[in-house]
Amino acid sequence: MMASEVSDVLSVAPAHTFVLFGATGDLAKRKLYPAIFNLYRRQQIASPFLIVGVARRPHTDESFQEEIINSIHEFSHVTEEEETLLHDFARHFHYQSAHIDSDEEFQQLHNRIDELEKAEQVPDNRVFYLAMAPEFFGTAALHLQKSGLLNGTGFKRVIIEKPFGHDLASAQELNAQLRQVFEEEQIYRIDHYLGKEMEQNIEVLRFANSMFEPIWDNRSIANVQITSSETVGVEDRAGYYEQSGALRDMVQNHILQMVMMIAMEPPSRLNTEAIRDEKVKVLRSLRRYAVDDVANHVVRAQYTGQAMQDKTVLGYREEKGVAHDSTTETFIAAELFIDNFRWAGVPFYIRTGKRMDTKATEIVIQFKDMPKNMYFNQNGGLGPNLLVIRVNPAEGMYLQINTKRPGSDNAVIPVALEFSQESNAVKEAYERLIFDAVRGDSTYFTRWDEVSLAWKFVDPIAKAFRENPQSKLHTYLAGSSGPQASNELLVERNFKWWPVFGQEVPATSLEQYFARKGEAKRP
Amino acid sequence: MMASEVSDVLSVAPAHTFVLFGATGDLAKRKLYPAIFNLYRRQQIASPFLIVGVARRPHTDESFQEEIINSIHEFSHVTEEEETLLHDFARHFHYQSAHIDSDEEFQQLHNRIDELEKAEQVPDNRVFYLAMAPEFFGTAALHLQKSGLLNGTGFKRVIIEKPFGHDLASAQELNAQLRQVFEEEQIYRIDHYLGKEMEQNIEVLRFANSMFEPIWDNRSIANVQITSSETVGVEDRAGYYEQSGALRDMVQNHILQMVMMIAMEPPSRLNTEAIRDEKVKVLRSLRRYAVDDVANHVVRAQYTGQAMQDKTVLGYREEKGVAHDSTTETFIAAELFIDNFRWAGVPFYIRTGKRMDTKATEIVIQFKDMPKNMYFNQNGGLGPNLLVIRVNPAEGMYLQINTKRPGSDNAVIPVALEFSQESNAVKEAYERLIFDAVRGDSTYFTRWDEVSLAWKFVDPIAKAFRENPQSKLHTYLAGSSGPQASNELLVERNFKWWPVFGQEVPATSLEQYFARKGEAKRP
Repeated sequence: MMASEVSDVLSVAPAHTFVLFGATGDLAKRKLYPAIFNLYRRQQIASPFLIVGVARRPHTDESFQEEIINSIHEFSHVTEEEETLLHDFARHFHYQSAHIDSDEEFQQLHNRIDELEKAEQVPDNRVFYLAMAPEFFGTAALHLQKSGLLNGTGFKRVIIEKPFGHDLASAQELNAQLRQVFEEEQIYRIDHYLGKEMEQNIEVLRFANSMFEPIWDNRSIANVQITSSETVGVEDRAGYYEQSGALRDMVQNHILQMVMMIAMEPPSRLNTEAIRDEKVKVLRSLRRYAVDDVANHVVRAQYTGQAMQDKTVLGYREEKGVAHDSTTETFIAAELFIDNFRWAGVPFYIRTGKRMDTKATEIVIQFKDMPKNMYFNQNGGLGPNLLVIRVNPAEGMYLQINTKRPGSDNAVIPVALEFSQESNAVKEAYERLIFDAVRGDSTYFTRWDEVSLAWKFVDPIAKAFRENPQSKLHTYLAGSSGPQASNELLVERNFKWWPVFGQEVPATSLEQYFARKGEAKRP
Repeated sequence: MMASEVSDVLSVAPAHTFVLFGATGDLAKRKLYPAIFNLYRRQQIASPFLIVGVARRPHTDESFQEEIINSIHEFSHVTEEEETLLHDFARHFHYQSAHIDSDEEFQQLHNRIDELEKAEQVPDNRVFYLAMAPEFFGTAALHLQKSGLLNGTGFKRVIIEKPFGHDLASAQELNAQLRQVFEEEQIYRIDHYLGKEMEQNIEVLRFANSMFEPIWDNRSIANVQITSSETVGVEDRAGYYEQSGALRDMVQNHILQMVMMIAMEPPSRLNTEAIRDEKVKVLRSLRRYAVDDVANHVVRAQYTGQAMQDKTVLGYREEKGVAHDSTTETFIAAELFIDNFRWAGVPFYIRTGKRMDTKATEIVIQFKDMPKNMYFNQNGGLGPNLLVIRVNPAEGMYLQINTKRPGSDNAVIPVALEFSQESNAVKEAYERLIFDAVRGDSTYFTRWDEVSLAWKFVDPIAKAFRENPQSKLHTYLAGSSGPQASNELLVERNFKWWPVFGQEVPATSLEQYFARKGEAKRP
């Protein structure tokens, strides 16, 4: 399609230097290099551009380039014809060893980058990606400034990863450190869920379709369910996870982001700040729970071991690096309320956990039931309409509606009107986010007020977990769908968790999944 | 599923005698015998039951049963294991020769049926199917009464086919003849489109899903498009068709039925009369055109010959049995208005024709455009949401919505959320309708006031065609989508006909079909 080719050509990252701290780390190898290579082969990075890797260990440019090539071979798919392209790509990489607290080494880094930019005729547009532990963000920022790397007329941006603090106070402190050096507009806080195709599609779904807005409120919607479940455990991140738990690891960022995108009011315009303004308003309307009230709305749990398929799975407390009496939650479910005109009375149910039965991030919008005793719902067997947005791993959506069972006289059954995204065209989240940061689009990054308001919601819950004996730590079997207490959260309002499907195609099994006590019939 | 098995078992036609006039005719062989056999093999006809064929030509029971077996072999699929079943089935058939105007032969028929009912212990529940030209309906009804066949305590019903008159006056006369003998409740007027699965599904779609009612009106819907196109010509029905034309053959019955089902208000209950009451209200609100106004809202046309694929197709006037100066329309398109609160201002576009490019009956509900200059619609390239109900030949539905093009930065494309019915479970229209008539459910048959109001709408149009030179007869090439004038009907309001897909799966080709002047983009 001509139109889109044109628009893609115009959407090319400007010439710049990408400075990657933590260049020899796992994230860089697994995610960042393959993502940048993908942008390169899509011709979305304008030449000239430079990538300067920074880490402590020694490397020559050549040995570093070798490592880039190896990483991309390992974590990306490179065809034979692309080998030359890959080697061309690697030649954009340079390496400079530096310790995060060394004035001198930062000065050397600055000199090196100056030289390279001159040699390659790259303007002094610089993007600094801090792939390091958050406690070093402040130090790194200060040294970037002192070394003079932030001077010059080109843009200077910094990309950082979560966690952004572990509570409001620490986040404020971290932010203050960054803000000594950078303006808010220069800071790109990654929430990689926001880079996912279907998450970005929520905005299109809501604001490019006229049929949804009239039914996108508490007159038509009964509840919203957001699930982000993993089948893996903590793997080698026990050290981090013990401190974080599911609440900080998932709810404070990813899950609340999804809540905001579903619940936000239509923005005045579809630009970054207008959208973020509306997202922030959702957090302002989000009912905050007092420490004593948390137990009524939030369930936390930890997985215990059990035999899974052909192996035995450890419980969380048996994992390497986890305290044997750890009270860190690996699962959390909660009932949220957004106290505004649109959503008053509509619960937003959220749940996330590790070692669950399905790997899936899905959002279910459940529309109101047909009135009981009316039409086809005389025996109460009529299921509700569901709009399901499948974020990960399958990308797509479906709408569950009721239809006549073919050939039957009076049976009504649920079916899925379904749409699946072809995944080969989909950009990886990091690819999308790096691209956006480089071209200066911060729509899918987190603004400081989002971060701070999210902590204001999360902090009392964390406090209740620490201090309030009523916020009891439940357990669930590894490989299950979570603790029974999570189901009970919904029972009060006569709701239930809808299943998430992960990779499965729901159309084939919907009838079975959604079978209720009886079958709806023509009266 | 237990529940539905139970409900199907309960839904069995009661013991009865099915008396089929026109037993040796084409409709009987092609449609009715296969349909009744299907009900039999589904065990939906309770034994004992009798089928008595009536026609002029002589037959013994044996030779008639032979013909039944041959017809079913020819027009249905019978497995080897079902041969015994088929022969058992055929033994329920008996034959009685009779002329429609012979008192004596009707008396013999009555005696024969009495005898058979006694011998087989069938109660005197009798269903008379008049598969004959409508001019004989009155005579047949009178003789049924005179012969005493309508006496007795069991139910007596008559099933008739269209055409039910050729204008209001003739329909009234025909109805008066039938009503001398039968009560309205005993008369089952078949519109075989109403037997189609997806047409019956409209009711379920609308009244078993809470999400559609809030957007099922002129605030959300821009227009409704109903297409019923055929690729065949008049075949061997030129004699009938020359008198009827597309207006009487399709619009007066099938098309207006679809209009009613889409437009009706929710009925007080889902029972036959409550639904029909609401359907009739639609016809009462349907704007009737004065003869002089017809040309502004209705387009008629006739096909002309052309080469199609590997053969040359005749024009209508070259067909056998068609006058060389015939002015019979083989295509009609019209703009209808339903002047009530729900639909004021929403045009219902209808079109039907023979020798068109696609065989398809489809209903498109087009939702309103997103406001221009807003959000993704800044270049006006954003397509509307469509809900498409596919009645025939593919059965199913899809919802066209706008989503982000995977991997793109700013392109928005239409996709189909789709659902297709498996056709093997679907009952043929005649199967469904015969079954309903036998068990006394007249929901999907036409009530007299529907028929008469439909004629009141159609008559001025027919008159304009006959008398008003402004209602010009257009032409269209055989194998095309109709005359240009049909497109112009929609242009005034800036609409266009959406394509119908027939057998095709739209999901794969939607983007191409719905491509508009440009592409919608993130502003």
